[in-house]
Amino acid sequence: MAAEDSLSSPGLDRVAGEKFLQEAFQIMLEEGIRKGMDASEKVCIWKEPEELQQILDLDLKDSGEPHEKLLERCRDVIRYSVKTCHPRFCNQLFSGLDPHALAGRMITEMLNTSQYTYEIAPVFVLMEEVMLKKLRKLIGWEKGDGIFSPGGSISNMYAMNVARHHRFPDCKQKGHWAIPKLAVFTSEECHYSIQKGAAFLGIGTDNVYLVAVDEKGKMIPADLEKKINQAKSEKALPFFVNATCGTTVLGAFDPLPEIAEVCTRHKLWFHVDAAWGGSALLSQRHRHLLDGIERADSVAWNPHKMLMAGLQCSAFLVQDNSGLLQRCHCAQATYLFQTDKFYNIAYDRGDQTIQCGRKVDCFKLWLMWKANGSKGLEQRVDRAFAYTRYLAGEIKKREGFQLVIEPEFINLCFWYVPPSLQGQEGCTDYWVKLEKVAPLIKERMMKKGSMMVSYQPLGKKVNFFRQVVTNPAVTRDDLDFFLDEIGRLGRDL
Amino acid sequence: MAAEDSLSSPGLDRVAGEKFLQEAFQIMLEEGIRKGMDASEKVCIWKEPEELQQILDLDLKDSGEPHEKLLERCRDVIRYSVKTCHPRFCNQLFSGLDPHALAGRMITEMLNTSQYTYEIAPVFVLMEEVMLKKLRKLIGWEKGDGIFSPGGSISNMYAMNVARHHRFPDCKQKGHWAIPKLAVFTSEECHYSIQKGAAFLGIGTDNVYLVAVDEKGKMIPADLEKKINQAKSEKALPFFVNATCGTTVLGAFDPLPEIAEVCTRHKLWFHVDAAWGGSALLSQRHRHLLDGIERADSVAWNPHKMLMAGLQCSAFLVQDNSGLLQRCHCAQATYLFQTDKFYNIAYDRGDQTIQCGRKVDCFKLWLMWKANGSKGLEQRVDRAFAYTRYLAGEIKKREGFQLVIEPEFINLCFWYVPPSLQGQEGCTDYWVKLEKVAPLIKERMMKKGSMMVSYQPLGKKVNFFRQVVTNPAVTRDDLDFFLDEIGRLGRDL
Repeated sequence: MAAEDSLSSPGLDRVAGEKFLQEAFQIMLEEGIRKGMDASEKVCIWKEPEELQQILDLDLKDSGEPHEKLLERCRDVIRYSVKTCHPRFCNQLFSGLDPHALAGRMITEMLNTSQYTYEIAPVFVLMEEVMLKKLRKLIGWEKGDGIFSPGGSISNMYAMNVARHHRFPDCKQKGHWAIPKLAVFTSEECHYSIQKGAAFLGIGTDNVYLVAVDEKGKMIPADLEKKINQAKSEKALPFFVNATCGTTVLGAFDPLPEIAEVCTRHKLWFHVDAAWGGSALLSQRHRHLLDGIERADSVAWNPHKMLMAGLQCSAFLVQDNSGLLQRCHCAQATYLFQTDKFYNIAYDRGDQTIQCGRKVDCFKLWLMWKANGSKGLEQRVDRAFAYTRYLAGEIKKREGFQLVIEPEFINLCFWYVPPSLQGQEGCTDYWVKLEKVAPLIKERMMKKGSMMVSYQPLGKKVNFFRQVVTNPAVTRDDLDFFLDEIGRLGRDL
Repeated sequence: MAAEDSLSSPGLDRVAGEKFLQEAFQIMLEEGIRKGMDASEKVCIWKEPEELQQILDLDLKDSGEPHEKLLERCRDVIRYSVKTCHPRFCNQLFSGLDPHALAGRMITEMLNTSQYTYEIAPVFVLMEEVMLKKLRKLIGWEKGDGIFSPGGSISNMYAMNVARHHRFPDCKQKGHWAIPKLAVFTSEECHYSIQKGAAFLGIGTDNVYLVAVDEKGKMIPADLEKKINQAKSEKALPFFVNATCGTTVLGAFDPLPEIAEVCTRHKLWFHVDAAWGGSALLSQRHRHLLDGIERADSVAWNPHKMLMAGLQCSAFLVQDNSGLLQRCHCAQATYLFQTDKFYNIAYDRGDQTIQCGRKVDCFKLWLMWKANGSKGLEQRVDRAFAYTRYLAGEIKKREGFQLVIEPEFINLCFWYVPPSLQGQEGCTDYWVKLEKVAPLIKERMMKKGSMMVSYQPLGKKVNFFRQVVTNPAVTRDDLDFFLDEIGRLGRDL
């Protein structure tokens, strides 16, 4: 039958489609959420790539598969995926599952619209504004602008681009060849997206000056001054300083007031990468960690991390409200941003971004906020700090556990020293041996499926665990289990 | 109660959470999907921004809201959002709702993981590879590499960055100041992301040479040659040519074989922006539109458009399999890409991208493909062509309707000429008057909620409608309705 002849009836079976959705949703609840959040179930079922490939039969064929087979596939995808909502999952800077945020995500997916114009996303255009304004208010700004971007790395790139445009508006048209060589400043322990951004934006990683950090991982302002002078002597023009609130490994907060001073003195754009630490602004008790953030020109903040909004939810915020974002990014596509529309086209915000179609990332956060209120979210932030304080206390009490650093934020960094190595710190091969402990424990926990926690080296410090607990479903029993289990898995090493 | 004291019990009510999800899901089915797909319901309920703001009460407060109120909010968000799954929605290059893709999206949201490492996303790391390989195969490549990115604009930026790195690997470290001024070539009717990308990457929009198009909107290869010579005479170094398969407004396909020839001759990176037109590769009958794409160095292809995978789903594909993506983007973060892992770290693909956390965009497409098979998707593509052919035929028959151009693809571009203007083409103010018709009809259809279709001017052509029908739920009755309704809404103008 030629395609033209078939147009009299729909090419999609709505009833069968709804049945599939209903059944897939129940599988999702049962296999993903109920089992996923159950501490007695595994965090992950480890399979080697080759074996998993066989189990999943991923190849795509000419013919479609029947209903039951497709449901089985959904079940398998869930079964062999890592349960990031599991109370024993603390491998990443995100974890847990907020039901309201998830409902918001599901509805967003169902509505499947794009954030560019009021006509196509009236609710979400207004909601994004309210959401960004709320985040700006927590920063301490009464005015400003912003956008949700596909992640913290891209938010940091936005910052670099906006700063460049602010200083050299001609660069947008003429490129770098018409402006002086630029220099970026960030700490040695900043997120790697600063380097990626400098490369992507054509600035080059050699023009990123890495400022020294103190023993806590915080940028040393005096060294920032030094690096600025060094850049000048190397004929590079300083324009952008990135301070980090919550470094990835140690959770360090750069000293914002001192960095702000340096930026003011040298007239540099002051960006704060608070992708990880920004959510501490919700806590009256802990927001002092970010004192000085109100002086920033721009901020990156990822509510998909600590606040559990769900990937992706990253806000890029600027204090400027003169339309810098728009001037920096606009390209005036006439098929989207018609100037003869019947409504106020100030609501069409899509040309402020580097994207065209842009996913709706505000609703999940908004609905979660409506459900919990700022106070409820504050309690979650405080709870995450309480987890860390409790674990740090336990570590000090337990033999074989050693803090890498006293946690200021909620990154708990520690070594587990198996009995065979205890008391041997003076021995020449102590660190060589200790370096191998965390990877082996990690392998064992993954294969057992009992928990997931990350490890990494840092500078001269050999592999240590970085445990981050943000999931409010976690209880003290889970915290005790974390440390007990690491001991159980590693005591024979 | 201090936070520390509360750790003995969970800070999240799982039972209440599941109840909320169940009820929100039923609202989603009822208000969003059943009503959304029902042609007798409105496509949108138009409200002015100020009025909508009042209805929605978007402000975020200190306290949370009760269960019933939150469900009411979900209902309102759906009610006042545009129903992109509605059979009368053809305002964008995406429309419709595939139940399997939606199930995939819901499960992706629930699993909430990030695509960077095998350890955290074993299923999706493998699945992404299979999915990208399938797309590459349809292009005609037996080898290659790729990544899902947050949209076509970013995929096009990837292309420019990879091309730059391929030609000038030093640029990553040293920036543009160490390399010659670069020149980009693309047609006058290319997507605006090429301009945005050139600005963002520090190349500058002045260094984007716009190649002339013929009356069908296709790039003229002879003019490409001319522009390359012009760039050289202006001391810019040609490095990148973008050809478009499916321009946004007319749906034009640039002549790939001829452009490939020029690229080969001048040793330029040949990128094809097939974000819109790429899906025609699935159709045996229509894939000839993309003949020559197999000669491209890179391709951008958005299955979230014609294939209905759901926003965001954009593949960036390269023919290179020497690790160019990795070399171009890597930053080797030791806390994610540890080299002492217990599994084969070749499966950790995250360092190939400019992002850190990266949303899983492959599963929705994969599940939809498994459900329909390549043949089922091919039928959908053919059906979209059949819609357009039918509408074009009707337009030729109907008084007051005039094609802007005979459609080659599925963009149907036409004017509606109200009776008061019919036969007046010679009059001096004909075009001035006609220009106002489409915006007025658009306003009326939005306020009535009966359908949504976009309009825009293009070069010297005044505002015309661009209708794109991809939703397989659409039937011939809907197609007739589209044209009837435009006539009804505009006949008094």
